Amino acid sequence: MDEEFMKEVIEEAKKTKGEYKTPYAALIVRNGKIITKVHNEIKKNLDPTCHAEINAIRKACQILKTTDLSGCTLYATCEPCSMCFTAAWWANIPKIVYGASIEDATKGNRRQIEITTKTLNEQSGNKIEIKRNVLRKECIKLFERLL
Amino acid sequence: MDEEFMKEVIEEAKKTKGEYKTPYAALIVRNGKIITKVHNEIKKNLDPTCHAEINAIRKACQILKTTDLSGCTLYATCEPCSMCFTAAWWANIPKIVYGASIEDATKGNRRQIEITTKTLNEQSGNKIEIKRNVLRKECIKLFERLL
Repeated sequence: MDEEFMKEVIEEAKKTKGEYKTPYAALIVRNGKIITKVHNEIKKNLDPTCHAEINAIRKACQILKTTDLSGCTLYATCEPCSMCFTAAWWANIPKIVYGASIEDATKGNRRQIEITTKTLNEQSGNKIEIKRNVLRKECIKLFERLL
Repeated sequence: MDEEFMKEVIEEAKKTKGEYKTPYAALIVRNGKIITKVHNEIKKNLDPTCHAEINAIRKACQILKTTDLSGCTLYATCEPCSMCFTAAWWANIPKIVYGASIEDATKGNRRQIEITTKTLNEQSGNKIEIKRNVLRKECIKLFERLL
């Protein structure tokens, strides 16, 4: 099931074109149903906080009319940065699934803050189940689209 | 000068009333001029990412028409959480000034992710100058307003 949702999120990233092309997309799923499917919009919105995961969390809260996403899973093409991991923590998201790691992104010439979700989770009470490397190779390929 | 701006940000937090009362406010300053002065809007916007610092960064980017706040300083009543610290990092903010610490907030019965800006800064290349405990007592008093 996680692989199916990862396929969806990869397709969402692939949809981005031209100057708004990005390897980053995210999905919020509740009870097996996709609530939001979005991508990074930093350039489009001129907003450095518009990472895919932040966009997904904000939009899901609007749709579900709550700041509590405790029944939801966050899927992302890339390991969430410390901003996005913490946003998930504040929103009580219990599970994160991702493809490429922050290290993969750095190798793919993407600017990254090099703090892993493993470190952050350990420092904040290990509240979030993290599933790593799901369709990792396909997610790494997204970085190549930008070269 | 930092104390003057901290007084401004404390006043911004004090302005919040009723169900939207919050101890958290933030300021973005460039060349000695206040660009944005905002507070936490999680409840108002039903958005767990609407911490004061995130709001300040987003608004400053809209006003200055850039995602690069490298000439700016971020002032906050409380030590930024890992979400807000990382947002400042992405926006290239070189200096953060704050009053109360995350530990003070926890003691003041505020839910907090207990990762300090010191730890985050060390883990991300020590790029940000952090000035701590400026008008700390006045900022701690803001937590009491909520009791």
